[in-house]
Amino acid sequence: MAKRSLPLSKVYTLLEPGPVVLLTTVHKGRANVMAMSWHTMLEFEPPLVGCVVSNRDFSFAALKATKECVINIPTVELAEQVVGCGNTSGAEVDKFARFGLTAKPARQVGAPLIAECYANLECRVVDTRMVNAYCFFVLELVQAWRDAAVKNPRTLHHEGRGNFFAAGERFRIKSRMK
Amino acid sequence: MAKRSLPLSKVYTLLEPGPVVLLTTVHKGRANVMAMSWHTMLEFEPPLVGCVVSNRDFSFAALKATKECVINIPTVELAEQVVGCGNTSGAEVDKFARFGLTAKPARQVGAPLIAECYANLECRVVDTRMVNAYCFFVLELVQAWRDAAVKNPRTLHHEGRGNFFAAGERFRIKSRMK
Repeated sequence: MAKRSLPLSKVYTLLEPGPVVLLTTVHKGRANVMAMSWHTMLEFEPPLVGCVVSNRDFSFAALKATKECVINIPTVELAEQVVGCGNTSGAEVDKFARFGLTAKPARQVGAPLIAECYANLECRVVDTRMVNAYCFFVLELVQAWRDAAVKNPRTLHHEGRGNFFAAGERFRIKSRMK
Repeated sequence: MAKRSLPLSKVYTLLEPGPVVLLTTVHKGRANVMAMSWHTMLEFEPPLVGCVVSNRDFSFAALKATKECVINIPTVELAEQVVGCGNTSGAEVDKFARFGLTAKPARQVGAPLIAECYANLECRVVDTRMVNAYCFFVLELVQAWRDAAVKNPRTLHHEGRGNFFAAGERFRIKSRMK
């Protein structure tokens, strides 16, 4: 695994297609992971992401208190671990140990990077005005890492109840869109 | 095309995987379409969606004024039309005519359904508090339609600059997650 820093201006290309991600936090010395599909880009530069972390999730308190997290992007090889993370609570389980995920130190935030994910996006919470209404946090991406060896990541996309598809055939259409 | 009403409780299964959608509006007698990838589910029931419609988009004024729209979900067969919609402005072009898209009346909103899309979600704007900060609209999905003949929709997922992938291999992992 040789991850390189990815320019922040390119981070939207990883999130815009809607992959399931693993959100890591650390709070009171305890790291946690949750599976998350409810996220969207909000701005290109500085890259802003909005995401829903339910107040029923153990990660909610950590995110609210520390205002830091990492968005880790898994591929299909990690599908079982993703579902495992979604079906367990950090209140009861050390998910890194249980699912064989490797925590690595981030550069700018306290939350860990998951080594097995092909991309890791270090984030700070910059707006909590929509947390009460929708558990919706606005994150600024402050540092991004990507495994350059993974050319066409087969990201996971969740259709509910454990039904997924993988990123399939890729193609390009001439476009002026960003 | 035989579209059936889809229970609102199931709508999240269509949007959670992150497809590019076509957002339709109508304003002052003029219908318009825009391509949109920046959206996320916010709540299961009633289904709420948050989405970014830039104030540089022609649709912005229509959405703000009418507070109604339809989220239409295309599949790969419509990729050229999606890019066409993304590269033109409704201020200059009748995109329905230009790209051969068929507008059908919705049941609960003024904005039209796009017949060629396999699913159509009628929406009302219910929260504009984040429009000034992020051009972020909160929509309630009030009526949903799905073509029952399309079993495994090959939705489009945008990686920026006209690079797409289609929904690929589908699989299920036993899960307690919704």
